[in-house]
Amino acid sequence: MPEPSENPAPPPAETPAAAPAAEGGEGGEAGGISKKAAKKAEAKAKKEADKIRRANEQAAAAAASRAAVQAEDLAKDNYGQETHDTKLSADLVDVNVKNLGDEHVGKTIVLRAWMQNARMQGAKMAFLELREEGNWSIQAIVAANPEGTPVSRQMVKWVGAINPESFVIVEATVKKPLAPVTSCTVQNYELHITKCFVHAAAPTVLGMTLAAANRPVANFSDEAPVEQEVEKLTIASAGETTGTPAASMLTHLDNIVMHKRSAVQQAIADIRGEMKELYRSYLRSHGFKEFEPPCLIAAASEGGANVFRMPYFEKEAFLAQSPQFYKQIEIAGGRKRVFSVGPVFRAENSNTPRHMTEFTGLDMEMEIKKDYREVVEVLEGVLFHIFRNIEERCAEEIALVRSVYPSEEFLLPEPGKEVRLTFAEGQKLLREEGPEEFRNVTDDEDMSTPQEKALGAIIRKKYNTDFYVLDKFPEAARPFYAKEDPANRKVTNAYDLFMRGQEICSGGQRIHDPVELEARIRTKGIDPASPGIKEYVDIFRQAGVPAHGGGGIGLDRVVAWYLNLPSVHLAAFYPRTPKRLLP
Amino acid sequence: MPEPSENPAPPPAETPAAAPAAEGGEGGEAGGISKKAAKKAEAKAKKEADKIRRANEQAAAAAASRAAVQAEDLAKDNYGQETHDTKLSADLVDVNVKNLGDEHVGKTIVLRAWMQNARMQGAKMAFLELREEGNWSIQAIVAANPEGTPVSRQMVKWVGAINPESFVIVEATVKKPLAPVTSCTVQNYELHITKCFVHAAAPTVLGMTLAAANRPVANFSDEAPVEQEVEKLTIASAGETTGTPAASMLTHLDNIVMHKRSAVQQAIADIRGEMKELYRSYLRSHGFKEFEPPCLIAAASEGGANVFRMPYFEKEAFLAQSPQFYKQIEIAGGRKRVFSVGPVFRAENSNTPRHMTEFTGLDMEMEIKKDYREVVEVLEGVLFHIFRNIEERCAEEIALVRSVYPSEEFLLPEPGKEVRLTFAEGQKLLREEGPEEFRNVTDDEDMSTPQEKALGAIIRKKYNTDFYVLDKFPEAARPFYAKEDPANRKVTNAYDLFMRGQEICSGGQRIHDPVELEARIRTKGIDPASPGIKEYVDIFRQAGVPAHGGGGIGLDRVVAWYLNLPSVHLAAFYPRTPKRLLP
Repeated sequence: MPEPSENPAPPPAETPAAAPAAEGGEGGEAGGISKKAAKKAEAKAKKEADKIRRANEQAAAAAASRAAVQAEDLAKDNYGQETHDTKLSADLVDVNVKNLGDEHVGKTIVLRAWMQNARMQGAKMAFLELREEGNWSIQAIVAANPEGTPVSRQMVKWVGAINPESFVIVEATVKKPLAPVTSCTVQNYELHITKCFVHAAAPTVLGMTLAAANRPVANFSDEAPVEQEVEKLTIASAGETTGTPAASMLTHLDNIVMHKRSAVQQAIADIRGEMKELYRSYLRSHGFKEFEPPCLIAAASEGGANVFRMPYFEKEAFLAQSPQFYKQIEIAGGRKRVFSVGPVFRAENSNTPRHMTEFTGLDMEMEIKKDYREVVEVLEGVLFHIFRNIEERCAEEIALVRSVYPSEEFLLPEPGKEVRLTFAEGQKLLREEGPEEFRNVTDDEDMSTPQEKALGAIIRKKYNTDFYVLDKFPEAARPFYAKEDPANRKVTNAYDLFMRGQEICSGGQRIHDPVELEARIRTKGIDPASPGIKEYVDIFRQAGVPAHGGGGIGLDRVVAWYLNLPSVHLAAFYPRTPKRLLP
Repeated sequence: MPEPSENPAPPPAETPAAAPAAEGGEGGEAGGISKKAAKKAEAKAKKEADKIRRANEQAAAAAASRAAVQAEDLAKDNYGQETHDTKLSADLVDVNVKNLGDEHVGKTIVLRAWMQNARMQGAKMAFLELREEGNWSIQAIVAANPEGTPVSRQMVKWVGAINPESFVIVEATVKKPLAPVTSCTVQNYELHITKCFVHAAAPTVLGMTLAAANRPVANFSDEAPVEQEVEKLTIASAGETTGTPAASMLTHLDNIVMHKRSAVQQAIADIRGEMKELYRSYLRSHGFKEFEPPCLIAAASEGGANVFRMPYFEKEAFLAQSPQFYKQIEIAGGRKRVFSVGPVFRAENSNTPRHMTEFTGLDMEMEIKKDYREVVEVLEGVLFHIFRNIEERCAEEIALVRSVYPSEEFLLPEPGKEVRLTFAEGQKLLREEGPEEFRNVTDDEDMSTPQEKALGAIIRKKYNTDFYVLDKFPEAARPFYAKEDPANRKVTNAYDLFMRGQEICSGGQRIHDPVELEARIRTKGIDPASPGIKEYVDIFRQAGVPAHGGGGIGLDRVVAWYLNLPSVHLAAFYPRTPKRLLP
């Protein structure tokens, strides 16, 4: 294919932006800053570089002199800072801690891991804990021994003083310990170290220790501690005996590396990842096709409340609050069933443990054949699929999270006994069995969060489930695109799904007829010609669109409420709040 | 869990924003505009609504009078606009066109599909083409017949006049045609219609016909046609015989519903979806964990070139150009291997068929045990996995795309004969076997796009492959975080992956030692204390981080270049360009 000469892609060398954010498929990483700028800057930087080179030379000289002192150290080649010249023994197998088995006993292996802990036991022996991803730890012993590969006292002392959270490479013989090692996750093997090199050193003082990172977060405020949160969280984790003080969310975020190394955060991340995969695999196996809605959009939704807006060349752009418009275009465009997984944005200035400005939406939309309840069935189906499978796939991770953030088991109904109430039935339950203050709730106004929670408690007691559907929301509580129930126009074919009394999914049947849609838009007091609305209605005028409906699930909420975490911030990889975009 | 009374989540009824973008897991859909505003607006809109109600009543009266005229029409209940009262025969099976089999012959079924085409054959018979998702079409016949479920002449006339791209519901008997129906994808069955209702009508004149939507896009410019593009594209599709004129990309986007209904766009979307799934499944089976990097970030990369910036409460935020910083945090945070799939953004004012402002990045990052080539192997591995499997999984879709956008088969090397050249070897090939103008290319400057393309042609001829790796890029062509080759500091442990002579992936080993990193930053003329850079370096100071590397693949490019499409815009679901954010 000839390259159109009018439109040459810029040569990679000219691609601007060098910094950490520069990689990506679109010509990303290549480049660096522009050559001119680089040359100028290089000249400026030369002095600095020379200074560093001199410092390095001095360090090398110091190392050489240390080497001379250690001349009598028989183990001198078996430990130290790893360098380009560090040699491991040939032909040794790299082993992961979790894969250790009886076949390794008596063998010498190589392990790359984090130094979780090191303590001297007299002058001739040190006990270490080495850790790998997913909280896999093993005990290692380095003991002075002149035989075989020699281990000297100097080596023991050096290894015993390695800073925790340094990354080390060890050669060691696998042995059976005399008694199970209860301080490590691997209890039936231990390592007897013959070589130990520091690949990457941690600082002497960590910003947050691993023990602190593994404690429940003490407080989620962006500013001063919120009293309730602190109170709730100083209940602390079950079985906690150490005196390690808990850290605030701010401290966790300022020490993101240690935050992420904690077993509890890795377990939450694993559970989140599996939930996402279960969502996709279920929908794929039910005929849904994945699509990708855009984040950059041309029109804010009605009023533009809570929408991020930004300059976009000569115009303005907005960040999508939901992919709904686009999943409906997919259905109009001839797809029977679609789903998407991606970020959505809300410019809401709410600084609470339940709010974020960027979160992950699990969205779906499908053609309706006869009844919108077909959609509710799929939404229930995918969530049951997630809940039932996650218990098996992530049993250990869930137990680990509960050991830090205690919570009651997430109750599910027996198959076939799913709980689906109408909104009116829910309100009746609230009036009849709820607390005093909800005796007068009506059927045509939306519920408040306290009402939702109270209803959740009633349903848990009555039906033994933490997951249920409320259907047929009142017309006034739903937006213009919600399809009214043809049999009772006071309510809509729209529903919410709840976990532990908190909404995690909202959806419904949409109006697919442009005349009906425009009439409803007017009834709701909106101008059908306003930006965003006009384009929306026009979609249904382009060609005939079948009846359809869908829903949007908030992944962060599903993870957080399933585990009953005190904040959605703990369920997110990089929580975004009005006050915090770092890291 | 008690709700902290200081931080109540807003009750759903108060959640603002009603419009199409309002759904989502975070309390989305519930709401509508605020009650006060709604009431005010409702009053205003009441007149409008009354007007519409009167119009509806008039229409109903007209329908009633038509019904009177049709009183003698025996088939009058078997066709027409579908209403709430439309009754289909009980107990009939819903069938999808693609699942029709001999077991259906002689049976009456229900089909919901698009009217692709309708033409009268005399006054008593009409031939229809009905279509479902994925280009599945079947011939249907409606013929006047007083027997059984009666079909009247009026019904034939009405059905034969249904606008193309209306969505219809038919009851029909499945029969074997006298000869295979070559105009439809289902050739061995046809439908004999007994009932036909229009569920959603298309307009009389479509903005773009399906035939035009299925033609190759004529021109990708946002403004005036670009001559080269038009020339290239008027080669037209192979075997194209109709006189349907091709439409420009602008026309396609203005008629997004018809654009998406085209068989070629559905095939491209299917191929894209499967490639994405193959990417994920390969990495998951190789020990990679999925994570989610943020889009909203606090600091632009060096200089801030090509970065979207936006007001963020009292501060400023930027849209991520790549998840690189974050995937490195994941490794620093104790993950061995991570990947992500998500949007990345470039504020580049380039209006060409190869540029977009939002695209999908397939990113990965992993711990390096001994050599950075471990990363190259995984990147090659996942791309080979995609290429080899997509040929099988999407054979029909690929053939369909080629029938519209002709291209040569994508050549892959035999397993074990993967092509991996150093940058210097590539330059040597260019000098020795490339065109005249590249006789003097050197080893320490990056390649231009024409050079890359020329090298791609040489490699295709020499090694019979359209996919290859260039490794050891010169130091000057790579950003500050690229690890230099310890054996030759003029080059880096960094690579690009190419398809048909075009870069689709960039990656390399990163510097993991903060001292080395800071020195390199200075050498490149960048201030290590500048925003974004400081936070980046600090990650490696928080705790020891193992050697690691990764890469970022541009999904849009992989799809587009694999199929040799004339523009990445065709590979995207909703292409974003500097001039266009709609739909």
